[in-house]
Amino acid sequence: MDLVAEDLSACNTLIVERMHSHVALIPQLAAHIVAAGGKRLRPLLTLAASRLCGYEGVRHVSLAACVEFIHTATLLHDDVVDESELRRGQASANALFGNKPSVLVGDFLFARAFQLMIEDKSLETLRILAAASATLAEGEVLQLITQNDLSTTEAQYLEVIEGKTAALFAAATRLGAVVADRPQAEAEALDAYGHNLGIAFQLVDDALDYSAEQASLGKTVGDDFREGKMTLPVLLAFHDGDTAEQAFWRRTLEEGEQGEADLGEAQRLLERHNGIGRTIDRAETYGEAAIRALDIFPANEAKLALIDVVRFCIDRAR
Amino acid sequence: MDLVAEDLSACNTLIVERMHSHVALIPQLAAHIVAAGGKRLRPLLTLAASRLCGYEGVRHVSLAACVEFIHTATLLHDDVVDESELRRGQASANALFGNKPSVLVGDFLFARAFQLMIEDKSLETLRILAAASATLAEGEVLQLITQNDLSTTEAQYLEVIEGKTAALFAAATRLGAVVADRPQAEAEALDAYGHNLGIAFQLVDDALDYSAEQASLGKTVGDDFREGKMTLPVLLAFHDGDTAEQAFWRRTLEEGEQGEADLGEAQRLLERHNGIGRTIDRAETYGEAAIRALDIFPANEAKLALIDVVRFCIDRAR
Repeated sequence: MDLVAEDLSACNTLIVERMHSHVALIPQLAAHIVAAGGKRLRPLLTLAASRLCGYEGVRHVSLAACVEFIHTATLLHDDVVDESELRRGQASANALFGNKPSVLVGDFLFARAFQLMIEDKSLETLRILAAASATLAEGEVLQLITQNDLSTTEAQYLEVIEGKTAALFAAATRLGAVVADRPQAEAEALDAYGHNLGIAFQLVDDALDYSAEQASLGKTVGDDFREGKMTLPVLLAFHDGDTAEQAFWRRTLEEGEQGEADLGEAQRLLERHNGIGRTIDRAETYGEAAIRALDIFPANEAKLALIDVVRFCIDRAR
Repeated sequence: MDLVAEDLSACNTLIVERMHSHVALIPQLAAHIVAAGGKRLRPLLTLAASRLCGYEGVRHVSLAACVEFIHTATLLHDDVVDESELRRGQASANALFGNKPSVLVGDFLFARAFQLMIEDKSLETLRILAAASATLAEGEVLQLITQNDLSTTEAQYLEVIEGKTAALFAAATRLGAVVADRPQAEAEALDAYGHNLGIAFQLVDDALDYSAEQASLGKTVGDDFREGKMTLPVLLAFHDGDTAEQAFWRRTLEEGEQGEADLGEAQRLLERHNGIGRTIDRAETYGEAAIRALDIFPANEAKLALIDVVRFCIDRAR
């Protein structure tokens, strides 16, 4: 997105600057995640949404950095593993540093995010990001509760991804209207855009985690399977499966008994019931809703960029 | 402290109210810690400091709740255990719920704290609590770095406890002057009071962790020893120890090789070098500095209450 390339570069500089601490392990560990983060999707959304609203100041750069800090803190806390997972020999995500540093550096980044928000001196932006942070934590807890539980409903799954992903996307885009001091209708349109995009993004992520093509590209697949996460592809295949198939899902996902061939078998069952294809179809529906939410804005470069983000998110899966 | 009994009761009500979530595990787990927290020392400090400054509104109640939420989030994150500790079979703190729920519910409480702060609509109180949160995380990371490392200096130890304990104490008391809109000198006096009290409090805590009397009262001792935490009693005894004693500390604290009789041996070595007594002497010095910091305030019930807190913290060890 050339439109916001300069802003994004300023945002990156700010992120590196603000993750500094005299406690050297903090920038070391944070750099590991922040650098690996790569695509900077969430801050990019704040930057583009601000442009869409005609904003010409600099506040959007630090708000975009706040959004990325909150996301990074979440990634670090997602890396924490539980005793049960360790027992199954699956501790690898935070193998480099261990549980405790991941937690504490995440806390530091979260506190830094709030310090940066406070510098923006707007209670409204603070409210939006604090509420998104609380919803995000609720979504993560709900995900934990539904883990290993095949009685999870589609509605519960949707609630999980609305919390863990869509809430921060919606906050990131809503901020654009808020910094530009635009009317409520535009803030709500951008919120709806971010919310629907976030759901589409997570649906695609959940589909890709079982994708054979991803595996052929050298990307990790099967993380959700190993963790017993209840994602839409599995819920669909489980629901439509016969008795033997349902027993397979129960053994592997509920009881956590997995052998080497099981991920392949899971992929075959998803294929049989078109679990991935149907998940991506849903993602497209949400993506269309995201694009429609932008209807109230005039066509311009920023709007095209935000539409491109939706296409990019969904095309990952095609 | 009768003076603030009503305020503290209002604060407790607010805490229970605001830790609510439709995700039932959150209030369940939070209640477990919040209820166990018991003494509510930090919010009590905010309440008493506000009274000392002649404040008569209600803002101090919600700020006190924010302070307690931040503290509770820290406790939950402190419960997270690392693979190495698990390997030594020492995972018990969060045995009831596991690592991940502790992390995520802590995140939720931290976000809730900020939501509550934002309702206070003061950028100044937000700044104080966000800065304390960042310093707290830095102190915790520094503690992790010095763990199992007997080359830790007293200055480094002091920096750890200033971060992990004194920063939030200082913020809690400084808030009293800020809500009451008192001059900078009073804010700084209350900050100095909280800072010195926090150090004294942590020194006593670190002494009690090796105290035979505590053990006889049925309280847990030896947690710091098992975790290889570098606390002042140990640093003093190690520094003054002979070759055989230093080898003992290296084996048990640096290499983590501990047998059943080792805590007893550690206690004998601390006794020989008066490690506990000298730590408590230091605590008294900080306690006196805390009391002196209150000199600029006129004598009244609130001031006596804050002086009592210092005495209470130190008398735990006598």
